[in-house]
Amino acid sequence: MAVVDVTVLPIGTGATSLSDFVVACQRELKLCGEGLNFQLTAMGTIIEGDLDRVLEVIRRLHEVPFNHGAMRVSTTIKIDDRRDKAGTILQKIQSVECKM
Amino acid sequence: MAVVDVTVLPIGTGATSLSDFVVACQRELKLCGEGLNFQLTAMGTIIEGDLDRVLEVIRRLHEVPFNHGAMRVSTTIKIDDRRDKAGTILQKIQSVECKM
Amino acid sequence: MAVVDVTVLPIGTGATSLSDFVVACQRELKLCGEGLNFQLTAMGTIIEGDLDRVLEVIRRLHEVPFNHGAMRVSTTIKIDDRRDKAGTILQKIQSVECKM
Amino acid sequence: MAVVDVTVLPIGTGATSLSDFVVACQRELKLCGEGLNFQLTAMGTIIEGDLDRVLEVIRRLHEVPFNHGAMRVSTTIKIDDRRDKAGTILQKIQSVECKM
Repeated sequence: MAVVDVTVLPIGTGATSLSDFVVACQRELKLCGEGLNFQLTAMGTIIEGDLDRVLEVIRRLHEVPFNHGAMRVSTTIKIDDRRDKAGTILQKIQSVECKM
Repeated sequence: MAVVDVTVLPIGTGATSLSDFVVACQRELKLCGEGLNFQLTAMGTIIEGDLDRVLEVIRRLHEVPFNHGAMRVSTTIKIDDRRDKAGTILQKIQSVECKM
Repeated sequence: MAVVDVTVLPIGTGATSLSDFVVACQRELKLCGEGLNFQLTAMGTIIEGDLDRVLEVIRRLHEVPFNHGAMRVSTTIKIDDRRDKAGTILQKIQSVECKM
Repeated sequence: MAVVDVTVLPIGTGATSLSDFVVACQRELKLCGEGLNFQLTAMGTIIEGDLDRVLEVIRRLHEVPFNHGAMRVSTTIKIDDRRDKAGTILQKIQSVECKM
């Protein structure tokens, strides 16, 4: 199980606000992200699940700004993949909070 | 006002679990981050505030693993800095949620 | 054509030097990256080519530290995908240098 | 000595090509980066030197798009800081190449 942070930025659209693109990405995520756990943050979206499934979904999110007129997209992906135990969004947060 | 995502990773410590380092960083943040708004996520910490203050605090977080024995640290910082209006953690999330 | 920067970091291996892992990743890249253009930098590897092919190759690079004993891997991927013209490693550098 | 990768992206300028911004950043780097070693790559700029100096310079690069009309800037910084030995751009590349 991997926990993955993704940020999809359209370049050159002339829009300072990106919320319309983020909304479109969230809708795509709901459509194609069945079985995955995800969470919107102020800096991106955190997705938890089987890594191949997560990357497949991210591949579709990356297309969203192109489908809305962008000609260039900058996508940043940060994968945290742990194989000794199941790392999940909840477990990662709790393992810190219970020590504070 | 900037919103900044930071991840501090110790390299070569032999510890697969990083929660002790994350706890130490959160404590440092509480000590030196007065006046800043921050939020722990499963993939890092999001800090909101004056950019110079935020970078000053991140500079201290980056030292935390060294203070706990690490000899190498990989720190990733993502800055979202908007000057046409005040971007905050709350405003960024709400501007998406109210359109969904 | 996309230009993609990837960094694969093993976590918890006890090794401060990462060059053995980087060497193993470069060998894997030579094995499975046929048809792609790639360049080792001091901070990662830049790969240029069809985005689906590039992501397929990165998926394999991400496994390399696991195959060498790591139990946790942090992989960061930055995609620059431009559809109005062919962005390549060479073109991107030259478009800057010719203006300086 | 730290090796740091930085990418400065203007958001909402309407320009798909970013080379003018990259050129302006490179000029700023030449002006204020005395004593630092730096290298332009296809995905950003790698800067080597004392970490506080490097961050001071990056803070100025982050202002460049604002000075050229952007209202929002996304800057990504990746720090590799090693204290057991001097990590440099050259040493990092050579330690891999000599093993291949």
